[in-house]
Amino acid sequence: MEIYFIRHGIAVERQNGLDLPERALTKQGHKKTEKVAQRLRELGLKFDLILTSPYIRAQQTAQILMAARLSVNLEISDYLVPEGLLNEWLEQWWEPQPKSENTKLALVGHEPDLSQWAEILIWGEAKDRIVLKKTGMIGVEVPTTGSPLGQCQMFWLTPPRLLL
Amino acid sequence: MEIYFIRHGIAVERQNGLDLPERALTKQGHKKTEKVAQRLRELGLKFDLILTSPYIRAQQTAQILMAARLSVNLEISDYLVPEGLLNEWLEQWWEPQPKSENTKLALVGHEPDLSQWAEILIWGEAKDRIVLKKTGMIGVEVPTTGSPLGQCQMFWLTPPRLLL
Repeated sequence: MEIYFIRHGIAVERQNGLDLPERALTKQGHKKTEKVAQRLRELGLKFDLILTSPYIRAQQTAQILMAARLSVNLEISDYLVPEGLLNEWLEQWWEPQPKSENTKLALVGHEPDLSQWAEILIWGEAKDRIVLKKTGMIGVEVPTTGSPLGQCQMFWLTPPRLLL
Repeated sequence: MEIYFIRHGIAVERQNGLDLPERALTKQGHKKTEKVAQRLRELGLKFDLILTSPYIRAQQTAQILMAARLSVNLEISDYLVPEGLLNEWLEQWWEPQPKSENTKLALVGHEPDLSQWAEILIWGEAKDRIVLKKTGMIGVEVPTTGSPLGQCQMFWLTPPRLLL
């Protein structure tokens, strides 16, 4: 099974330091994300499901992936808000979820959360050692049985410029 | 500073299970590596130096990178043979080497060595959690001062298909 962590595209700046859920993608953010989505489509990637943070910039990013037909299933997930907890998501969402060996899942969200989730899955702890740019992606291979914590393998880490 | 770990391209199979240093790239290995090198060139990548394992398949890979003008400096390095030790390389080669903030270095070699070196630089220990395909690349950002062990950040991990 594969999980792809995808950070939202370039969004409008914070106002007065506030990280409002309403912050939207900029024009450039839209454009870059569309190009990356197109390239992923050309590479033959298909997600069984895209889960996205409810924040607007993440939802817009997920919508662009959907428009590029990278998936036909989209779910808005509160687990993916900033400071969302990996353990809660694993217990309450991942474990009960029906999965097959070939399941491919995309999680669209925020930093530093996504790279920390990936690190915990790969090495068992988060040390902020992965650089995940906006519209960047991390791909991890998840073992089909047992806890995925510290047991996943990383096979993909791209800043968007590699896919433009 | 950045270090790029680049695994050699597809080589001819082992004969009688022996990993001979003379194993050369196949035609397909040449072709794929040339395409990846061309793409890296288009991305504007430039290495101050390419260090390569003396094994033929690694030297050929390094020569293809040179032919794509990704560097003008090539050095054959015994530290990069299979089972070469990161600590020896760091002490004897890396530390005495003159470097600047913008130094970009490419190491061409073998698996599982390269991904293990990268893991030790990033997380402090090797757990075989990075999948590095043939002609695949890992990019790590190295702090300019102090020991790099467990202090590097990973910003790039690509199987060749992402760069073809």
